[in-house]
Amino acid sequence: MTRLRNDPAEFADQLVDGFVAANATRVRRVPGGVVRVAEGAPGTVAIVTGGGSGHYPAFGGLVGTGMAHGAAMGNVFASPSARQVRSVARAVDNGAGVLFVFGRYAGDVLNFGQAEQRLIADGIPSRTVPVTDDVSVADREDPATRRGLAGGLAVIKLAAAAAEAGLTLEQVASVAERANARTRTIGVAFSGCTLPGASEPLFTVPEGRMAIGMGVHGEPGTEEQDVPSADEMAAILVRKVLEHAPIAGPARAAVLLNGLGAVKYEELFVVYREVARLLAEAGIELVEPEVGEFYTSFDMAGLSLSLVWLDEELEGYWRAPADSPGYRKTPSPAASADPAAGEAAHLDLEEAIPAATDASKAAAKRAAAAIEASRIAIDEAADELGRIDAIAGDGDHGIGMQRGITAAAAAAARAVDEGAGLGTTLRIAGDEWADKAGGTSGALWGVALYAAGSAFGDDEPRDAAKAVAAAVDAILGLGGAEVGDKTMVDALVPYRTAFADAVASGDADPWTTAARAADAAAKATADLKPRMGRARTHVERSLGTPDAGAISFALVVTTVAGVLAAS
Amino acid sequence: MTRLRNDPAEFADQLVDGFVAANATRVRRVPGGVVRVAEGAPGTVAIVTGGGSGHYPAFGGLVGTGMAHGAAMGNVFASPSARQVRSVARAVDNGAGVLFVFGRYAGDVLNFGQAEQRLIADGIPSRTVPVTDDVSVADREDPATRRGLAGGLAVIKLAAAAAEAGLTLEQVASVAERANARTRTIGVAFSGCTLPGASEPLFTVPEGRMAIGMGVHGEPGTEEQDVPSADEMAAILVRKVLEHAPIAGPARAAVLLNGLGAVKYEELFVVYREVARLLAEAGIELVEPEVGEFYTSFDMAGLSLSLVWLDEELEGYWRAPADSPGYRKTPSPAASADPAAGEAAHLDLEEAIPAATDASKAAAKRAAAAIEASRIAIDEAADELGRIDAIAGDGDHGIGMQRGITAAAAAAARAVDEGAGLGTTLRIAGDEWADKAGGTSGALWGVALYAAGSAFGDDEPRDAAKAVAAAVDAILGLGGAEVGDKTMVDALVPYRTAFADAVASGDADPWTTAARAADAAAKATADLKPRMGRARTHVERSLGTPDAGAISFALVVTTVAGVLAAS
Repeated sequence: MTRLRNDPAEFADQLVDGFVAANATRVRRVPGGVVRVAEGAPGTVAIVTGGGSGHYPAFGGLVGTGMAHGAAMGNVFASPSARQVRSVARAVDNGAGVLFVFGRYAGDVLNFGQAEQRLIADGIPSRTVPVTDDVSVADREDPATRRGLAGGLAVIKLAAAAAEAGLTLEQVASVAERANARTRTIGVAFSGCTLPGASEPLFTVPEGRMAIGMGVHGEPGTEEQDVPSADEMAAILVRKVLEHAPIAGPARAAVLLNGLGAVKYEELFVVYREVARLLAEAGIELVEPEVGEFYTSFDMAGLSLSLVWLDEELEGYWRAPADSPGYRKTPSPAASADPAAGEAAHLDLEEAIPAATDASKAAAKRAAAAIEASRIAIDEAADELGRIDAIAGDGDHGIGMQRGITAAAAAAARAVDEGAGLGTTLRIAGDEWADKAGGTSGALWGVALYAAGSAFGDDEPRDAAKAVAAAVDAILGLGGAEVGDKTMVDALVPYRTAFADAVASGDADPWTTAARAADAAAKATADLKPRMGRARTHVERSLGTPDAGAISFALVVTTVAGVLAAS
Repeated sequence: MTRLRNDPAEFADQLVDGFVAANATRVRRVPGGVVRVAEGAPGTVAIVTGGGSGHYPAFGGLVGTGMAHGAAMGNVFASPSARQVRSVARAVDNGAGVLFVFGRYAGDVLNFGQAEQRLIADGIPSRTVPVTDDVSVADREDPATRRGLAGGLAVIKLAAAAAEAGLTLEQVASVAERANARTRTIGVAFSGCTLPGASEPLFTVPEGRMAIGMGVHGEPGTEEQDVPSADEMAAILVRKVLEHAPIAGPARAAVLLNGLGAVKYEELFVVYREVARLLAEAGIELVEPEVGEFYTSFDMAGLSLSLVWLDEELEGYWRAPADSPGYRKTPSPAASADPAAGEAAHLDLEEAIPAATDASKAAAKRAAAAIEASRIAIDEAADELGRIDAIAGDGDHGIGMQRGITAAAAAAARAVDEGAGLGTTLRIAGDEWADKAGGTSGALWGVALYAAGSAFGDDEPRDAAKAVAAAVDAILGLGGAEVGDKTMVDALVPYRTAFADAVASGDADPWTTAARAADAAAKATADLKPRMGRARTHVERSLGTPDAGAISFALVVTTVAGVLAAS
């Protein structure tokens, strides 16, 4: 729904004020609408568009170099009057006449038609080209029964480029007519917009359903069905447009995938991915595609696909630069994409596996086994960790730990299979943990394993104390927490100290000794289940001391220690 | 809510595929994100941004000439991993080091920080500049506690322009730090987005309320209040930003009014109108303002205002051209707006009043009186006309007629006061009717009065039959309906014929004679109330024969006839 307005009766006028204020170097107001600040070249045809307000960038946002010379801006969803249209046209006439390009709606046809007659009476040659790209209401035999949708942007652009090329009014009109005859659009809607000041939406579609062919003002669709997957949506849009293809078989086409307001860019890109694949499959080469918002209906949830079947002349006009507040086309910095790019995209992020000593490979095996053992322990503890985290945090700690260590364990196993040493195995496991777990704790576990791996290296694994210190220091450095902040650091630091002391004192199993210290610091016992239970009670008593991260740490290191001690 | 997806786990990856497919001449994929197709100049600093997906055009859409060299694209609302960030940075390094510019969120701080360390270890000089423009969570004394919002676009752009100017990494970093230190943003939210695959919105705000300072991921706001008017909204945003102004008093500033997804362009323009006024009042000169969608949160309903206090160097960078898929800046075709434009905008559309004969002025008086009489008749009949129209149409005929004839009567009275003749008076009345009534019938009534006025002219009013015929023909020509189509034409044509016959046969009062014919054709009697009553009954019986338009016509012409006959 729309929310921001003053007096609804003033809405359309105030939006033009704001639009012009925000784009004062490009457009200026004239009675009835807006025109370019930069005047067209003398003796060239002026392109005037327009319609009801509420479809930005249509129509005022399409006024600029390489686009329309002016736009008559009506009230919300209401055609501008003939007088408004005439006023805008008189302001932009460069002495070569005016071509009106507008969507085919009854009010617009009446008013632009009347303005055309008055201009001719004024001695200004004029022509109208109503855009009729909506195939949903198309009688194949009678395109004049169609409505105008987002394809109008392309018709305006092609006509404007022809006008700037110096063509006569008749020639520009025939370019616009040819462009319109080669443009097809299909739209779908999930929900309607609520007009400024209205209490009810203009129309509704049942939740989980969509209307195919519904118009931007709520004109009824031709079919209704459940909301499909993004790929199925692409297939529906492409099929509907190709059913009405003006030219059978392979072709070159401009394409616009248009969001009507509340269907956002990310969704459009996911749909476009399949649209592009299907059109290529159909032998249609896409020329400078556009994915975004070109013809909206306030915050209506819907999208439309437009194709313009190009010929050589039209392709030249389509590629011509354009610069309007709502639509800009700049020369492509590259003729086409590096074909290898697609491949590169899916290259594995993992580094190559460097050579390692047998001792390091053996240690890597033990480390991978320890991580796998921890994965099992975390799996069992995940819900409990989530519950504990939910008391002090957002409750996703268990899931995050689970995602991270699962990925780390799998990566470590792969690395070991590929002959990685201890250092590389831990680095890869750390990176995978960070990638898959996401969030802060994921990054901290990742950097810890990565740092430990870097300290160990792939030669003889020695000086575990240095590796442990590196891991803990990395977390301290990156996380910035200190002992007493009620984070995993409360367990980390005692672990590091106990480990170093144990190594220094010749402890045969510094892992277990340090693990006990961490475990104690995390106020948890050696046995998982009761520990978690008591920890939770404790947490509930003391608002998050120790936090779930500290318990995870204790859990992981005690498990790791158990495996390493046993091996 | 978001609706279009395939496997939610694949969403982030598929949107990058589609984004790159749609912008293949500008961006290409690399492991971890996207980079420019056009490589940066050797020896220049590379700008790398990034963050979670779901904020388009942030962050991949900001990769391009004059903008970022690359963007690390994380999962939905999740920071990219250090490995992703490092991979993107290595792909764009031009030998002069890499500057990371990203919003200050824990995960991003960790991962970009870690990537920086790894790059330095790789021998690539690197710096990070977290953006901290969100004043809602600002401790004035400690900007480092702030989050990053839409102001990040400006920081990226300013840093990128500095990099392209050939500055060193240290210099570009200090430009970015200064830009960030001079950038302030405040956001408000009305409702949250639903992430792809999620069943519940990320957060909700009570209907009719808004949260001030709410973060784009649902981070809690600092205040909640009822949704204000557009002007009050502007006042709140401006006040909050100026409270945290880095520099007191007059200044030059870049401004971004950003829609978060479901608050659309028209609403933003209405708000911007007042934002610009208030900032000018505060002595802040706005440099190349931007109103649109720069940092979204899927279809979250909200908006944010960002100001960047410029100095001379920063203004130069802000004005520099930029060309990325989601943000382009082209040189302004004009240094500034024509100051007269604002005035011209509000000029009255009415034409000057040409000289007229006294006889014509007298006739104009009678015509104005007749239109005023019709206004009263229509006022009384408006609800009834609406009810009749609702049976066959959308029920707005009564309101439309009321708006139109009220405007026409007032315009006619003004014209008469200004000494207009009959022709000019009718033309002005017709134009006003069309402007204010809108819709098809408004256009038809407008063209009819305009045509009649043109036929009468401002000299001796003679040949009323010609004027009546002109009015009727204009409606027939514009509307395209024929007798029997159950439109007002069913009453118009008999009126025209009867009028011509009456004039030819020397009828003293052709008006009333013709009105009776129209009235009869409209199956309505001479007395309003019973006529309307019977007409409704009739309509209910026969599904819209005669239609409300025909009754309006009969009503108006009989009233007009009454007045003219009496005068």
